[in-house]
Amino acid sequence: MMPKLHTAWLPRGVAGALEGLALQVLGDGRVMATLRADLADLHPGAVAARGTARAWVTGDATAAHTPGAAAAEAALSKLPEGPDAFVILPSGDADLVLVARSPRALHHAVHTARRRETVGPEGIREHPRAPWRMLNHWDNFSASDAMGSIERGYAGPSLFWDEGRLRDTAPLREYARLLASVGINALTVNNVNVHAAETHLITDRAEDLARLQEVFGDYGISLLVCVNFAAPMTLGDLETADPLDDRVIAWWRSTVDQLYEKVPGLGGFVVKADSEGRPGPFTYGRTQADGANLLAGALAPHGGVLFWRCFVYDSQQDWRDRTTDRARAAYDHFMALDGAFAENAILQIKYGPMDFQVREPVSPLLFSLSRTQFVVEFQVTQEYTGQQKHLVHLGPLWREALDTRGGGRSLAEVVSEGPGVHRGMTAVSNVGDSPFLTGHPLAQSNLFAFARLAWDPELAPRDVLREWAGATWPQLDTTVRQRLVDLLEGSWETYEMYTAPLGVGWMVDPVRAHYGPSVDGYEYSRWGTYHFADRNGVGVDRTAETGSGYVTQYPEDLARRLCSLETCPDEYLLFFHHVPYSHVLHDGRTVIQSIYDTHFEGFDRAVSMRDSWNGIARAFDTAMRAEVDARFEEQLRSAREWRDQICTYFWRKSGVPDEHGREIPR
Amino acid sequence: MMPKLHTAWLPRGVAGALEGLALQVLGDGRVMATLRADLADLHPGAVAARGTARAWVTGDATAAHTPGAAAAEAALSKLPEGPDAFVILPSGDADLVLVARSPRALHHAVHTARRRETVGPEGIREHPRAPWRMLNHWDNFSASDAMGSIERGYAGPSLFWDEGRLRDTAPLREYARLLASVGINALTVNNVNVHAAETHLITDRAEDLARLQEVFGDYGISLLVCVNFAAPMTLGDLETADPLDDRVIAWWRSTVDQLYEKVPGLGGFVVKADSEGRPGPFTYGRTQADGANLLAGALAPHGGVLFWRCFVYDSQQDWRDRTTDRARAAYDHFMALDGAFAENAILQIKYGPMDFQVREPVSPLLFSLSRTQFVVEFQVTQEYTGQQKHLVHLGPLWREALDTRGGGRSLAEVVSEGPGVHRGMTAVSNVGDSPFLTGHPLAQSNLFAFARLAWDPELAPRDVLREWAGATWPQLDTTVRQRLVDLLEGSWETYEMYTAPLGVGWMVDPVRAHYGPSVDGYEYSRWGTYHFADRNGVGVDRTAETGSGYVTQYPEDLARRLCSLETCPDEYLLFFHHVPYSHVLHDGRTVIQSIYDTHFEGFDRAVSMRDSWNGIARAFDTAMRAEVDARFEEQLRSAREWRDQICTYFWRKSGVPDEHGREIPR
Repeated sequence: MMPKLHTAWLPRGVAGALEGLALQVLGDGRVMATLRADLADLHPGAVAARGTARAWVTGDATAAHTPGAAAAEAALSKLPEGPDAFVILPSGDADLVLVARSPRALHHAVHTARRRETVGPEGIREHPRAPWRMLNHWDNFSASDAMGSIERGYAGPSLFWDEGRLRDTAPLREYARLLASVGINALTVNNVNVHAAETHLITDRAEDLARLQEVFGDYGISLLVCVNFAAPMTLGDLETADPLDDRVIAWWRSTVDQLYEKVPGLGGFVVKADSEGRPGPFTYGRTQADGANLLAGALAPHGGVLFWRCFVYDSQQDWRDRTTDRARAAYDHFMALDGAFAENAILQIKYGPMDFQVREPVSPLLFSLSRTQFVVEFQVTQEYTGQQKHLVHLGPLWREALDTRGGGRSLAEVVSEGPGVHRGMTAVSNVGDSPFLTGHPLAQSNLFAFARLAWDPELAPRDVLREWAGATWPQLDTTVRQRLVDLLEGSWETYEMYTAPLGVGWMVDPVRAHYGPSVDGYEYSRWGTYHFADRNGVGVDRTAETGSGYVTQYPEDLARRLCSLETCPDEYLLFFHHVPYSHVLHDGRTVIQSIYDTHFEGFDRAVSMRDSWNGIARAFDTAMRAEVDARFEEQLRSAREWRDQICTYFWRKSGVPDEHGREIPR
Repeated sequence: MMPKLHTAWLPRGVAGALEGLALQVLGDGRVMATLRADLADLHPGAVAARGTARAWVTGDATAAHTPGAAAAEAALSKLPEGPDAFVILPSGDADLVLVARSPRALHHAVHTARRRETVGPEGIREHPRAPWRMLNHWDNFSASDAMGSIERGYAGPSLFWDEGRLRDTAPLREYARLLASVGINALTVNNVNVHAAETHLITDRAEDLARLQEVFGDYGISLLVCVNFAAPMTLGDLETADPLDDRVIAWWRSTVDQLYEKVPGLGGFVVKADSEGRPGPFTYGRTQADGANLLAGALAPHGGVLFWRCFVYDSQQDWRDRTTDRARAAYDHFMALDGAFAENAILQIKYGPMDFQVREPVSPLLFSLSRTQFVVEFQVTQEYTGQQKHLVHLGPLWREALDTRGGGRSLAEVVSEGPGVHRGMTAVSNVGDSPFLTGHPLAQSNLFAFARLAWDPELAPRDVLREWAGATWPQLDTTVRQRLVDLLEGSWETYEMYTAPLGVGWMVDPVRAHYGPSVDGYEYSRWGTYHFADRNGVGVDRTAETGSGYVTQYPEDLARRLCSLETCPDEYLLFFHHVPYSHVLHDGRTVIQSIYDTHFEGFDRAVSMRDSWNGIARAFDTAMRAEVDARFEEQLRSAREWRDQICTYFWRKSGVPDEHGREIPR
């Protein structure tokens, strides 16, 4: 079949380590059948010139009786633990043996082999560090929704919905394959802000879920649905959604029972409640646990799980009141409930305390919960990081977050070992129906990197980028690949340099929906997003002694480090401290000079990025070059605007001239 | 018939000086017929207990031969010049005689008599100072337009259009009567930003104009239509709209010829070209006169006129470039063309050089054109003055503008005597299909005041308010009326006190479309709307010596006054000068202290206004009280926000504490 979507890191006709091998897929069931069909589709002309490869799922009765079972036994002994683990081994019996603990893991194994040139004499042994590797699509039924086709979507219209209806699901098979090939095993396809029409997905629109489940189920990917906490009022005829009301409990039980009749195998629900205007248990004086357990209870008989987002904060904050601190919200709301959640309830916690800014510290809640299951939420879509117009590879940002240590553990370790059975990572997707799936063609690297880090949170960004570039353009000249990796690897730092300085965040334009500079854009807002710049200094005091006390939510070692000006890293300085412009950073520069320097350098680096791209562009096809060129043009325009607005703003406020005498508009 | 719209200053059953008189309307034609029908409708139970009134149009053959012609002769001798003049005289022959120079003027005369308790022994002699008294409705065909049902409309949906179609025109008769009763004699009913659908009004949607013309023509009100300069390309099959291209000229001639066949008596066109993204002659390297004369030429054979808006400026300005000054734009673009416009072309010039801010100096173009006809444009809709949520009576603002003198003449004199035949005033309407027509019930006073000032630009705001209150609530207790007039009279000054200080303007929130404070909202914008506040001072230097030179566009006397810090009025200080916060105003306060003082006092005054309203509210019906109460609540919330954001912003920037030690958020 002709590909309907961009093939990304699954280009046609590339076999990698499977090159020349006839692959025998041994085993039954729909996910195995999908794998057979995919291989026939991807390698229609494959001839076993060199030998044979065999792929098994462990414990599969059919497989055990086929030729090569001995090789499988050998491989089995090297198969790591974990539900989606797999092993790829050279073998005497066959040329290559792939064994996995689940059918979907075999997809992952096969594509892993295809991404490698060889498997080497030691083979490849892989296991996921956590069971949940999820994507959240914030897609609306219709582009007429106030937020457009995809909320915070920068890659064209929804792949799933159009004018209120489910789209043709055929192209989604390619998307499911793409996700399965990197180990993503769950997704949602509707916005966490569940509006009127989408509320019906769990009742009279359940047929749509069933059709989507056909597609994603064939790849072993679990489909979940975002639900509206007020559904008993919207869909039912109740006048309350109180989670402790018997009628509400009964309504959810009965609704979920009927839903699972129509969509057997549904993964469960994702819920955003009591947040930014969404209804929730607070409306009825109940706790977040009451709300989550209500839905978890209805899902439990069917084996479904409930993801409960912790993005709960006061979005009607008064900027005059410096005692309120939005950063405190997740911890303040959820820490006291540690241990109060049902066995199949999973908190979904943003990695940072604010909202996916260019730099945020890790949320203290992640280091503190000990009796509550959770997944960490990242954002692949570039809401505050250039909206897929700017080239910003997020791997290093996630790497830094995952490396953050508190209470003796890194976030990566928390993800791998945190409380309970249900752990993992989820992310807001950056995919839409654009020619390159992700708007900016190179933003595919973010989707890839998220999946790889969800699989193994210890991976190095540079290795991931190399792997992605190799998979996407297997024929690419090594030097070109190297330069592409260099370009992407430094792009986040560059973006940070020309945008909000020293960890303070925000300063984005609320008019053009979080894009482009507006230093005071949120300064007097109800969103709790301030920098408090005056003529003397800038930054948010979150210390225990003189500030909001947010820092005390951290484990003591981390709290101590962040609270002291001696040890707080420069890049988080203004997130935790209000300091004079004359404050000297660890690098010896004053705050004000650092602001000037980073912004001039940031813009210059953006220019260099564009030049680097021009140096390698001819290695790529013209359609891609046109897309990337146009985006670089906008990035440079925007970076210059950022540089000048930030420098002028702080020059006007501080009155301190640039040491290097560069031109700053008055 | 039951009124479909709010009756405003034409309450049912009120006859004023006509009380007890049987009114004989002498004369024929559709406008006279309308008057007869209206009187039967408004005074269905009128009995001539006291006597008789007679109403004539001068020169009307029928009237001359009826009884009372002698009285008419007497009145005629006292009838002022001017096409819409009228006289109301006590008479021996009849009890009252009304004579007017046009049928529509007789409507005005009759309603003038109805608004008065008596006409007095000397009678009433009235004449308009200029022939054009127009309203512009910026209404869109559909609310799905990006700007909503009415661009800058704060009073509900359009009275004219709904979902792309013309609405039932029956209620519009009441609206036409309301306008005719105060001498408005022309209007447009579609947005000056003419989008795709509305472009068709001059061709296949001309039927809609014909139906509107039936309504407004019955009141002698001239209907004009806003047209799209690019129509030859949009509607025709030309690839150009070049005003000097023969095919374009022919297209307009033929289109206008056909339009007048369908809508005989159409008043003409209003055009916004080369402005804020609208197409225009600049696209083809032609002058604004070339563009205007093209359309004027097509209209001339039909007696139509062309209004050409002068709101032409660079809306892609670079904030870094302090040499560009948007205030200069209208003069820079049009002064050199003085005398180049056709006889039936009329420039439509905003009274101020920017865009209807809470305080603006008068546009220098108005004092300078000597060979070009123009009307002055005001804004009744409160785009930048509280959007009909805040109580802001604009009479005093317009009074101040009209009293401004340059080159020995006041703007009122310019309107009354300016070059050519076509002179007058036009305004953006504040009317929509809301219960009280204008959103805020008391915003009706603005519509009334504009009409009265267009008729007589020398009127005192307080007299106009008294007249309006008396007409709207004839039974109102004198003390209550007095207090209502007081409340309205000071409301603009109050609004100014808590918003942008000392004439600098803007500082509004671009997110909520020009509503609410955002000191830096436009500071780095492409709109050319800056205040340049830094840690030392604030304001825009528009002097000749060190600034943009805008001030030199004024006649010498006015230029000298504005250019000098000694003589520039405080309320325009920051419009013309960049000064340190320590600069001392004429009232002895520093700029920074004045900012603090006015903002605290402004908020306090808003509270007093609410209290004053509460003291008189029970004199009004409950529906109106509910509307006004709700709006005062929002006004106080917003005024507090303004006060605090402005004070905090300048405190943070200047570091100067408030002399009176009032609490300013950090």
